[in-house]
Amino acid sequence: MKIRSLVTGGAGFIGSHVVNHCLQMGHEVVVLDDLSGGFEDHIPAGAVFVQGSVTDEQLVAGLFAEYKFDYVYHLAAYAAEGLSHFIRRFNYNNNLIGSINLINESVKHKVKCFVFTSSIAVYGAGQLPMREDMIPTPEDPYGVSKYAVELDLKAAHEMFGLNYVVFRPHNVYGENQNIGDKYRNVIGIFMNQIMQGKQLTVFGDGEQTRAFSYIDDVAIPIAQSVNIEGAYNQVFNIGADKPYTVNELAKVVCANFGVTPDINYLEARNEVMHAYSDHSKAHGVFGEGSGVTLAEGIARMATWAQRVGARQSKEFDNIEINEKLPQGWAPKVEATVATNV
Amino acid sequence: MKIRSLVTGGAGFIGSHVVNHCLQMGHEVVVLDDLSGGFEDHIPAGAVFVQGSVTDEQLVAGLFAEYKFDYVYHLAAYAAEGLSHFIRRFNYNNNLIGSINLINESVKHKVKCFVFTSSIAVYGAGQLPMREDMIPTPEDPYGVSKYAVELDLKAAHEMFGLNYVVFRPHNVYGENQNIGDKYRNVIGIFMNQIMQGKQLTVFGDGEQTRAFSYIDDVAIPIAQSVNIEGAYNQVFNIGADKPYTVNELAKVVCANFGVTPDINYLEARNEVMHAYSDHSKAHGVFGEGSGVTLAEGIARMATWAQRVGARQSKEFDNIEINEKLPQGWAPKVEATVATNV
Repeated sequence: MKIRSLVTGGAGFIGSHVVNHCLQMGHEVVVLDDLSGGFEDHIPAGAVFVQGSVTDEQLVAGLFAEYKFDYVYHLAAYAAEGLSHFIRRFNYNNNLIGSINLINESVKHKVKCFVFTSSIAVYGAGQLPMREDMIPTPEDPYGVSKYAVELDLKAAHEMFGLNYVVFRPHNVYGENQNIGDKYRNVIGIFMNQIMQGKQLTVFGDGEQTRAFSYIDDVAIPIAQSVNIEGAYNQVFNIGADKPYTVNELAKVVCANFGVTPDINYLEARNEVMHAYSDHSKAHGVFGEGSGVTLAEGIARMATWAQRVGARQSKEFDNIEINEKLPQGWAPKVEATVATNV
Repeated sequence: MKIRSLVTGGAGFIGSHVVNHCLQMGHEVVVLDDLSGGFEDHIPAGAVFVQGSVTDEQLVAGLFAEYKFDYVYHLAAYAAEGLSHFIRRFNYNNNLIGSINLINESVKHKVKCFVFTSSIAVYGAGQLPMREDMIPTPEDPYGVSKYAVELDLKAAHEMFGLNYVVFRPHNVYGENQNIGDKYRNVIGIFMNQIMQGKQLTVFGDGEQTRAFSYIDDVAIPIAQSVNIEGAYNQVFNIGADKPYTVNELAKVVCANFGVTPDINYLEARNEVMHAYSDHSKAHGVFGEGSGVTLAEGIARMATWAQRVGARQSKEFDNIEINEKLPQGWAPKVEATVATNV
């Protein structure tokens, strides 16, 4: 019998790549995605698509009962870290309660391994480089929700023997990224802005650094982890090693579109200035990665973005707290009201 | 104008004492309680009682809009730590999402201080004594949910300036405890069993230790914390210093009811063997406490329990995972089904 895998968020950026690699490994794949951030045409041919949310416990229970999954790859999330301060309830409901629905069913149906995509947001602004043996102290609701799921998975392993692998990817970019999401993914935002002839927007002075990671260096280890016993019940940082400033990044992206950087520096938002991870643990278990440089990865993504074109940003229309919402993030109706007051 | 305080879980054990002390401090008090673990007749006269759940976001928003609270004391929780493995979704919904509803409204309405009753469950099985400067690593869903709220409060303080005080009480006992709850509070369970002429039940060999804490040493600092600026945005262990084994405890309780301990030792459940906290931080800010000994506190509680009598245990009827549920915890209908299979 074929191996059966559930990939939540499989219409999304990282998820669609994971689906692709699972299909290549011969898995039967069911994608569960509510299309809030993903696109149906990103789902590789050969996967079964179910449109719905991980927060729908009846739907989730029904899928596990029907398909008896061997593996669960849980990538569905509302991942706008900076926005999470302003949508706390939505954040915890999507990212924690949704995950708990999957963990419950994985325990009940004795799933062989639960692969969870966490985030470097769990670390908070601690020592650099971030290492897996540090005890995390997340500093925003998004990071808190991801860390809570990590801890819950560990508890489920101790109590019920559910195996898990946790990945903490670092600022991933590449083909299939939702470049229409104005709240996150700076590379996608830049490409979308360039293709619409707009100024690039940067929060703060652009000297904050991130180690931008090409999708293959993240999606391939995630997909293959279920086959590697040494990965079980472990946490891995995953992604690139070399940090770049957002200003340096802007130059690389602009070069690929043949434009000169024109940046509108907005008020700094509440975010960590520098972030890079130690990946020696992942390298030891999954190998050294694709070797794709930032210039090469950006070039590939730019080629793809120019083919699919600019997308219109979706507004997030259910902001819970408007106070201190960064510039440009307020839904337009709210902005209008504010102007009239 | 009088100070207005919201006390969630104000019909519960610790909550009802906090309400009492707030009234003594001259506050106008609104109690929000769904009576899942509390009793209306525990609510001190003079408080406004609203029956409902912190998970009801409309109700919570309406209360904040109507009363414009100065202070929020958030004690509502489903606190059965051991059961939380089996009711994960319920646990996170009650203990985390419910708290987030209150944090959202407290930010919007500029509450002056948000007092949160967390738990020593956040620490996990680490070094002893537990100290506030340790980084917690909770090991069960209850501890994870409490720690997530602590982290979220810190994030809300950093972003929006919401002041908070976090308390981590340690095995509290005293008058108004729900001795009918079979899932938690060993002292209440013992008293209820004795008054019903039943054997005492203990998980494991009874040599696990806890520093059982009399209610006055917990509820008074909680109530007064809003007046103490040095307490703001701090975390405090709170409770007694001296650990006792569960077997020693059984002797003290039995002595107060004039019976000889007769203990049914059940299979050990997944819990930490020893737990005691360092309270020097709390003593420095709130003073040394009431000095009530275990013998004296148990005597007071026994007098109260004998007056109110035994209560029938409520069954928790929505267990999510039945596997590995400890002996005696399965709802009766489930147990019957299991026998028939």
